[in-house]
Amino acid sequence: MSNPSRGVERDVIQRPSAGKAPFYLPQKDEVEIFRAAWSRRLPVMLKGPTGCGKTRFLEHMAHTLRQPLVTVACHEDLTSSDLVGRFLLQGDETVWQDGPLTRSVKEGAICYLDEIVEARTDTTVVIHPLTDHRRQLPLDKKSQYIDAHPDFMLVISYNPGYQTALKDLKPSTKQRFVGINFDYPDEELERKIVAGESGCQKPDVVEKLVAAGRRARALKDHGLEEATSTRALCYAADLMNAGLSAVSAARAAMVYPLTDDPALVEALEEIIEAHFGQAA
Amino acid sequence: MSNPSRGVERDVIQRPSAGKAPFYLPQKDEVEIFRAAWSRRLPVMLKGPTGCGKTRFLEHMAHTLRQPLVTVACHEDLTSSDLVGRFLLQGDETVWQDGPLTRSVKEGAICYLDEIVEARTDTTVVIHPLTDHRRQLPLDKKSQYIDAHPDFMLVISYNPGYQTALKDLKPSTKQRFVGINFDYPDEELERKIVAGESGCQKPDVVEKLVAAGRRARALKDHGLEEATSTRALCYAADLMNAGLSAVSAARAAMVYPLTDDPALVEALEEIIEAHFGQAA
Amino acid sequence: MSNPSRGVERDVIQRPSAGKAPFYLPQKDEVEIFRAAWSRRLPVMLKGPTGCGKTRFLEHMAHTLRQPLVTVACHEDLTSSDLVGRFLLQGDETVWQDGPLTRSVKEGAICYLDEIVEARTDTTVVIHPLTDHRRQLPLDKKSQYIDAHPDFMLVISYNPGYQTALKDLKPSTKQRFVGINFDYPDEELERKIVAGESGCQKPDVVEKLVAAGRRARALKDHGLEEATSTRALCYAADLMNAGLSAVSAARAAMVYPLTDDPALVEALEEIIEAHFGQAA
Amino acid sequence: MSNPSRGVERDVIQRPSAGKAPFYLPQKDEVEIFRAAWSRRLPVMLKGPTGCGKTRFLEHMAHTLRQPLVTVACHEDLTSSDLVGRFLLQGDETVWQDGPLTRSVKEGAICYLDEIVEARTDTTVVIHPLTDHRRQLPLDKKSQYIDAHPDFMLVISYNPGYQTALKDLKPSTKQRFVGINFDYPDEELERKIVAGESGCQKPDVVEKLVAAGRRARALKDHGLEEATSTRALCYAADLMNAGLSAVSAARAAMVYPLTDDPALVEALEEIIEAHFGQAA
Amino acid sequence: MSNPSRGVERDVIQRPSAGKAPFYLPQKDEVEIFRAAWSRRLPVMLKGPTGCGKTRFLEHMAHTLRQPLVTVACHEDLTSSDLVGRFLLQGDETVWQDGPLTRSVKEGAICYLDEIVEARTDTTVVIHPLTDHRRQLPLDKKSQYIDAHPDFMLVISYNPGYQTALKDLKPSTKQRFVGINFDYPDEELERKIVAGESGCQKPDVVEKLVAAGRRARALKDHGLEEATSTRALCYAADLMNAGLSAVSAARAAMVYPLTDDPALVEALEEIIEAHFGQAA
Amino acid sequence: MSNPSRGVERDVIQRPSAGKAPFYLPQKDEVEIFRAAWSRRLPVMLKGPTGCGKTRFLEHMAHTLRQPLVTVACHEDLTSSDLVGRFLLQGDETVWQDGPLTRSVKEGAICYLDEIVEARTDTTVVIHPLTDHRRQLPLDKKSQYIDAHPDFMLVISYNPGYQTALKDLKPSTKQRFVGINFDYPDEELERKIVAGESGCQKPDVVEKLVAAGRRARALKDHGLEEATSTRALCYAADLMNAGLSAVSAARAAMVYPLTDDPALVEALEEIIEAHFGQAA
Repeated sequence: MSNPSRGVERDVIQRPSAGKAPFYLPQKDEVEIFRAAWSRRLPVMLKGPTGCGKTRFLEHMAHTLRQPLVTVACHEDLTSSDLVGRFLLQGDETVWQDGPLTRSVKEGAICYLDEIVEARTDTTVVIHPLTDHRRQLPLDKKSQYIDAHPDFMLVISYNPGYQTALKDLKPSTKQRFVGINFDYPDEELERKIVAGESGCQKPDVVEKLVAAGRRARALKDHGLEEATSTRALCYAADLMNAGLSAVSAARAAMVYPLTDDPALVEALEEIIEAHFGQAA
Repeated sequence: MSNPSRGVERDVIQRPSAGKAPFYLPQKDEVEIFRAAWSRRLPVMLKGPTGCGKTRFLEHMAHTLRQPLVTVACHEDLTSSDLVGRFLLQGDETVWQDGPLTRSVKEGAICYLDEIVEARTDTTVVIHPLTDHRRQLPLDKKSQYIDAHPDFMLVISYNPGYQTALKDLKPSTKQRFVGINFDYPDEELERKIVAGESGCQKPDVVEKLVAAGRRARALKDHGLEEATSTRALCYAADLMNAGLSAVSAARAAMVYPLTDDPALVEALEEIIEAHFGQAA
Repeated sequence: MSNPSRGVERDVIQRPSAGKAPFYLPQKDEVEIFRAAWSRRLPVMLKGPTGCGKTRFLEHMAHTLRQPLVTVACHEDLTSSDLVGRFLLQGDETVWQDGPLTRSVKEGAICYLDEIVEARTDTTVVIHPLTDHRRQLPLDKKSQYIDAHPDFMLVISYNPGYQTALKDLKPSTKQRFVGINFDYPDEELERKIVAGESGCQKPDVVEKLVAAGRRARALKDHGLEEATSTRALCYAADLMNAGLSAVSAARAAMVYPLTDDPALVEALEEIIEAHFGQAA
Repeated sequence: MSNPSRGVERDVIQRPSAGKAPFYLPQKDEVEIFRAAWSRRLPVMLKGPTGCGKTRFLEHMAHTLRQPLVTVACHEDLTSSDLVGRFLLQGDETVWQDGPLTRSVKEGAICYLDEIVEARTDTTVVIHPLTDHRRQLPLDKKSQYIDAHPDFMLVISYNPGYQTALKDLKPSTKQRFVGINFDYPDEELERKIVAGESGCQKPDVVEKLVAAGRRARALKDHGLEEATSTRALCYAADLMNAGLSAVSAARAAMVYPLTDDPALVEALEEIIEAHFGQAA
Repeated sequence: MSNPSRGVERDVIQRPSAGKAPFYLPQKDEVEIFRAAWSRRLPVMLKGPTGCGKTRFLEHMAHTLRQPLVTVACHEDLTSSDLVGRFLLQGDETVWQDGPLTRSVKEGAICYLDEIVEARTDTTVVIHPLTDHRRQLPLDKKSQYIDAHPDFMLVISYNPGYQTALKDLKPSTKQRFVGINFDYPDEELERKIVAGESGCQKPDVVEKLVAAGRRARALKDHGLEEATSTRALCYAADLMNAGLSAVSAARAAMVYPLTDDPALVEALEEIIEAHFGQAA
Repeated sequence: MSNPSRGVERDVIQRPSAGKAPFYLPQKDEVEIFRAAWSRRLPVMLKGPTGCGKTRFLEHMAHTLRQPLVTVACHEDLTSSDLVGRFLLQGDETVWQDGPLTRSVKEGAICYLDEIVEARTDTTVVIHPLTDHRRQLPLDKKSQYIDAHPDFMLVISYNPGYQTALKDLKPSTKQRFVGINFDYPDEELERKIVAGESGCQKPDVVEKLVAAGRRARALKDHGLEEATSTRALCYAADLMNAGLSAVSAARAAMVYPLTDDPALVEALEEIIEAHFGQAA
């Protein structure tokens, strides 16, 4: 199984190839809203919990629209310079290097700021003039503006469950976006997703996994920090495909990563045993 | 719809062209106050909530007065060096680069510090000598003052709803400005603005949107962090223009970006359904 | 009214010209105390609220004594290096650049540290050896002291209303200064100041403005953060001079910059209407 | 015993030699789960208390699978640059240097982020795209992605006892991993480990040590911050091998490093005396 | 009175000239203790309130012993590098520059760390090996120790009134010093000091000043943050010498710098009027 | 007494000369435990209060074992780079400079991290792989490990009295060490130490000092932050040797450095007077 080739470096901006779009099954009217916002180049906010498919949806839309997609995962130390660019020393010269947002604005990509709430506040301010009629990116360090490429579009994600009084988008930022709501898929749709993602061929296993996942989500009101994601169900199916016993696989994917609380661990294990029997 | 051209870089200081001024409809005596303050070059503070037209007003005034407008969106990490300038390495030389405030002071532009409360406190101090009889900008790092160009004017914005005990302008700063108050426009004026901004040709749709927006604003006293802005109404009209159903458009622009609270979401959706009927 | 000339750069240390001293009307014995402190080169602390004329007083004294005046507006990020100086890279050399305090100490200027409480604590420590019998400025980074020029004098300002337990001068610093107290001028004096500053030729308007200002100051005990300054009254007279209606001018200068509290706004507007009638 | 040779520098990535795998005795199904996750290259989280063998297990697995193992001990000041890489000055050039995570992603190693919770939050964000279907490492500073080498695998460790509200992995991060639970080994297994690790030839000493260790662990519910680790038992055996008396060795390894509380010290010493008699 | 000469730069280490020692009148056995500590080169801690003569005492002792005295005023941003030294760029070379502590250790001076509690904690650690039998200064950045010059001596000051739980010397630091206690001088001694310092020739004025100062100190128990220092009394005498009225001088030196509390201001003014009559 | 020679710079790693080991009198079995740990190269933690001889013990052991000893006094700003090393600019090259820990690991010294709890947390993490079977030091910045020299040994000190919930070694760090407990010596031993350290020839003075010190330690339960150290007793004897009166010497060494609390000062002075009579 060993492969001597090295990991491949790719430029951050790439127009999708003509091939098949990434696997995605729509939940509600999210495709229509996104298309309308795109036609007017309005900025979009994807709202919803972890692992429900926001990233996958955006990859699907970018592929369908044949637009390059630039993703920036935001974090506490991400500054506006990380997005916009900075001066670098090269030999005796100070050379400006565009950041991923600037490149998207100049070259006309969809720029996706994932969990922007996590970033430092200067990042939210730098996108303001991009989100109203001005469509401008200020490069303060260069005393310049950039008028956005006609195909530039800004998308952010936002997980309502995480926000606290200390860390939230300001209303003056939120109102600059068109909002699209995501939630866990309904039962039938989730079966299709788990089967499609994991390549699992056994409908009864998929059915049991999705049923167990839905029952586990009900524990959210009993102290579980975040409900079982669709991704966790796919992991379980994946581990079974690799030959692991159903109970071991379900525990490894759906119990231990979710909680350290002994009572919740027990409750989750009971749900698994109820669907897959006891461990051998 | 794809356009191969790149985003355009523009210098931060540009005198407005002779063409038509940006679309703006006055609310009260804001134009007269601004003109009087301009004739004496007194510093001006624009007060009012998000999305009520402060930026648009200032663009309109700058165009009318034929003065260049330099906008700086302030944020937690903005220091006085970002405004005033800094030494950069170029080859073997340390070269001074003027910041946007210094360029405005030297070249005679209107400098707009948007939401200055967000900036670090050294920025508020650096503008003090510019706001009294001295009209001087201290360049501490160069051991210099700059006597302001006769056409330099300072404008700041200020959203009273955001200020907290921890983050507010000091009274000794506030009293250095002439204040102009903004609020949401009255009903008839708001219809004109929504129609003008979005280009929506259907008066009944505009009327319904404005009526729904005004009812939604009443929820501010019931926990909504900030009321529906005029901009949100324009977004909704825009999405409808792009072919999205009225209910989907109104939800995407006027509900999800405003709140995550289930009760408030429901209340906002009821207002929308009351004006546009249920979703298809 | 447009003027093509650029803002003018001036060195920070300039001996006042022989012309007329800046307009200043003494309140009490402040001129005598300052002259006595100057004759002994004792350090001076100017105490008093915003906009009551501390800066103007010092400009007047410096002009009368024919001494250069170097003003440093202190802020949270001001370090002792900003005052004292630092090493800069120039080509291949590291070159020391004196800060404004060092230049004042060497060249014999009055150095005014405005609101020194705001600065970082290392700045208050660096001035200690300058304020006792040593009259020395330590340049730690150069392993040197500077014995002060015989004409060097240190002046600081201090607004008692702002200090908190967290941010105050240490007693060991305060006791190193001779204190001069400032307050708002009495009624007759304030009329002279407003007329003199704004150039307003109508004694009845000035009388009304000062009367309204004095009534507004009484609201300080009812929640107003800081009382109406003499400067605000001058702004109002200035706006009227520029042709704005009396009520609009008074509101813009004396109401909106002072408070966001609806009750206080109403109270201030009533005072204005009581003196200038209702708005047209 | 003195040895003149110097410490040896080794590159961080080394494929294990063909020799015997490091000593490891399995507790439960951890080997099977790891093998299944490896076959699908799913990211793995090792959960469990201090000194129970997580690091040893991973060294064993890496040796068995003949994969290079790159370990990064995370801490409060570890940033994503420490993992991913940074630009360094070399002569007149700015040269990019890959961090240990980037090298693992490119060259196909198992990268082990030990106690990742301790690191700064930007590190958890940088691994997100490596843990889903994308298997990409973003190099923001180079405007690049790296598609992971097929043999790259990510492993993190996590000690549930340490996490607090302030410092915990976000659920959206945890759910991206397959979880493997570790605990202290059962009695018989622990005897084998202590004997194997320390090379102690006296079964009765090992038996007493393990028995004393298990009784000491019961004090965890009486205020002991963390229970006696298997490693501490090995230290005690080691000190006895070096000729120290049993009681001195047990105290030095199993009492003083665990607690400063006089009551707990006494309780632990009683346990030791109960097994090894009083000190000579 | 104007003097065209510039401030004079002096190296930080200078052996006192043979002339008269600075004016100092001993309070108790402080001279004997210091001499004993000096003969054994034990480190010394000067304890006492602001302005009671600690600095003057040390200048006197250094002059008497004919030792150079290097004073470092400590503050919140003072790091061990500021004391010990750092690498500086000079052309293409990185050159080490000794800090004031290192120079004292090498050249054999008395190094006085004034208010060391204010400094960052790394500074207190760096002096530990200098204060025990090792008498070594570690230069971590150079991988070196310096064995102290036989004439090196370390002195720190410490104001017991300022220390809080958050900011205090650790007992393990304090116990490394020999302590000398200072307090305000007794009445007769203080008269001599005020007369000697200010050069005031009128014994009755000095007597009244000292009497007023002693009564003012009693207010310390009524909320005055720190009692009137001897230095403040000297300032008052100085201002009177310069021709200011006694009441104005006493207020400027002994009231306004001490407190902003109206009740305390009134109480202090009453004390002054009781000794010098009402202001003219 | 003046000596013109300069302080002497010495490299941080030096093998002890063949001469007499530093003066040290053992308390309990600390020498045996240390020898056993050394023979197995197990890491050692020295626990105990200030000034009880931990540093002296380690110097003694290093001399006895003829191993170089490298001491690093830890503090709040000490980072892992200070221990491990960093890249420095030298001319046009970036050159790596080993830190004291790396040099110890490479050259085979005993590395003593004094009060490691004070250091930043990245330092505790960097020593983890040095304290288990790996005996490796990771040089993250160089993408390398160093396998420790066979004679490398790690020793840390730890003062149980200082640790707080906020600042303590993690259990997972503590359990990696063999612990050796220190306390104040018993009476007879302490007399020998005071006589030996200070060279004091008068047994009755030493007896009184030790007796007074032991009574003073009893005040620890009455609010004294830390008990009188053996070092303080040596200081007192030293000052007496220098000719200071017994009471003055005892106060300067055993009262003022310990406490600012008037009641505790009085209690300590009473103890001294009870042993040495009243001051002359």
